Amino acid sequence: MGGDHGPPVVIPAVVRALQGLPDNVRFLLHGDEAAIRSGFAKHLEALQRVEIRPAERVIAMDEKPAQALRRGKGTSMWNAVEAIRDGQAVAAVSAGNTGALMAISKLILRMSAELERPALVTSIPTPRGVTTFLDVGANIDCDAERLVEFAIMGEAFHRAAHGVPRPKVGLLNVGSEEMKGHEEVREAHRVLREGKIDLDYRGFVEGDDITRGVVDVIVTDGFTGNVALKAMEGVAKFIISELRTTLSSGLLAKLGAVLARSALLKFRERMNPTPAAPLLGLNGIVLKCHGGASNRDFAMAIRLAVDLARSDFSAEIERNMRRLPDALAEPAQPPTDAVASNGAASLGATE
Amino acid sequence: MGGDHGPPVVIPAVVRALQGLPDNVRFLLHGDEAAIRSGFAKHLEALQRVEIRPAERVIAMDEKPAQALRRGKGTSMWNAVEAIRDGQAVAAVSAGNTGALMAISKLILRMSAELERPALVTSIPTPRGVTTFLDVGANIDCDAERLVEFAIMGEAFHRAAHGVPRPKVGLLNVGSEEMKGHEEVREAHRVLREGKIDLDYRGFVEGDDITRGVVDVIVTDGFTGNVALKAMEGVAKFIISELRTTLSSGLLAKLGAVLARSALLKFRERMNPTPAAPLLGLNGIVLKCHGGASNRDFAMAIRLAVDLARSDFSAEIERNMRRLPDALAEPAQPPTDAVASNGAASLGATE
Repeated sequence: MGGDHGPPVVIPAVVRALQGLPDNVRFLLHGDEAAIRSGFAKHLEALQRVEIRPAERVIAMDEKPAQALRRGKGTSMWNAVEAIRDGQAVAAVSAGNTGALMAISKLILRMSAELERPALVTSIPTPRGVTTFLDVGANIDCDAERLVEFAIMGEAFHRAAHGVPRPKVGLLNVGSEEMKGHEEVREAHRVLREGKIDLDYRGFVEGDDITRGVVDVIVTDGFTGNVALKAMEGVAKFIISELRTTLSSGLLAKLGAVLARSALLKFRERMNPTPAAPLLGLNGIVLKCHGGASNRDFAMAIRLAVDLARSDFSAEIERNMRRLPDALAEPAQPPTDAVASNGAASLGATE
Repeated sequence: MGGDHGPPVVIPAVVRALQGLPDNVRFLLHGDEAAIRSGFAKHLEALQRVEIRPAERVIAMDEKPAQALRRGKGTSMWNAVEAIRDGQAVAAVSAGNTGALMAISKLILRMSAELERPALVTSIPTPRGVTTFLDVGANIDCDAERLVEFAIMGEAFHRAAHGVPRPKVGLLNVGSEEMKGHEEVREAHRVLREGKIDLDYRGFVEGDDITRGVVDVIVTDGFTGNVALKAMEGVAKFIISELRTTLSSGLLAKLGAVLARSALLKFRERMNPTPAAPLLGLNGIVLKCHGGASNRDFAMAIRLAVDLARSDFSAEIERNMRRLPDALAEPAQPPTDAVASNGAASLGATE
């Protein structure tokens, strides 16, 4: 029922997604039974793989998370998430209210990580493919442990979503030297570099590496990630609009623009952000599709949910999370007499 | 002597800048006397407004700041900054090593603000003009007081550099509601909103507002600012390069690209970051021009330095800085009995 359009987008998306999915993938659709049933009038075959779960109420797009928690029980969103907890579904996809979806998912499924809230992931296009970038706004204050959790979850997500066997992971910083950045990133760097967490850590990366594709996964706190993502979106919008103005000024440029139109359209499509983001750190797979999603977008979100559910994603995260306490432990301090300013004593110790 | 080119860029830039500047603007050029003198061979008239200050040594572009401090005395950079302290110059412009320039300037001129290091400013193009954005990397950990100092300095800079009488100031955050963001931005928001600092504060802005021009000055900590700036540069580079590929694929697009070429060139020029950034928070005006600056870039940096020196910039900053301690003081707590959940007691107090 969620998003700007509700069933008129979700139902065609289900029909579309079903075409590429194995026969054993089935759907529970939560919401207004009559609306859903009439939406399938022309797709009776698809309806055979769908079970309608009537829900009388919905969460409004502008509802506050706290309010959604208080009065959410029995809404379509609540029931969709509850179906995961009860083992009736393996993943949920919603185009509804993001804050409410996060709060309800956290309450019903509980967190597998020690996060304040599920982490928000986004996928940024690069010349080589896609960068998985997190957290883009859910967890504002992050210590080193949170950052390492993001690395663990982002890495497993990237493998499941993009089929990259061993994604390369980087930590966002203001320079590549060990001394750079605030304490939290330096400590997370130490933990990841030590290699006790099973992932391919490549060290610090900088803001311009997000679109360069030097690593597959880039980790940062939710404040920096949210600002960087929105700043990038702002630049993309600005450039496209400037370009449009420039290309329509002057007769030759106008003619050029007409001729280049299809190329520009292809280009704009590539710059479109991915339509869905998983909420990472939950005991269960929940995907948030953006509110204005088209049929095509929502179908892509469904396929992503299926990819995640069929992968080892959750088990991989769990395995690395169990390594975290040991990895976070302070490195053993050398005995005091081994620390000498000229290094002689430590050299002596290896003799 | 600094930058990738040294005198072959700096001297033509001085000649170029002089054309638009009042007669009483004069230059001290620090460095290799023979090289400088021969650079003016074809510009003897300009040489009359130049005094050459011989310096035998230079700071290398890759020198560490600590090293630059130890062995910097007598270098061209050191002498240029020292001339400000000694009242012989009102501003310094350098295309040299940024870290060294910051360290040397801080040592010689001292800070007027309570900052770790001078703040780095950049100017971002928007549909309406330019956004002044700081700090973009010098001060990584910032409390509320630092953020308010950035607001004070950025506002005075924007007025001096762009002639906007009353620049609008925003604080970068992950949402526009009062409750959003970490403690430091919320506290800086409280201080700025109270109005004890004399500037036009417009509240929180988000990442995509940087290129939208909703406010003139956007303030953030050096970590977030550096990441956002580099992320934006990365997107701009990515888009231009994607566009080039797209426009050269297919005959029609190629023809279109040829016809649109001059428009695209104009556009790229507009996207070029401004060539110079002031180091804010020093007792004196020091501008850092980027290392690869052209004659034209360096001439623009010189004109900006003159604009700053002729403005009330420094006095305005000083006035607002003096208001800071009072503005930072915790707001008076209302007496306990005035705080009632239904508001009756506080209503009563106004009767």
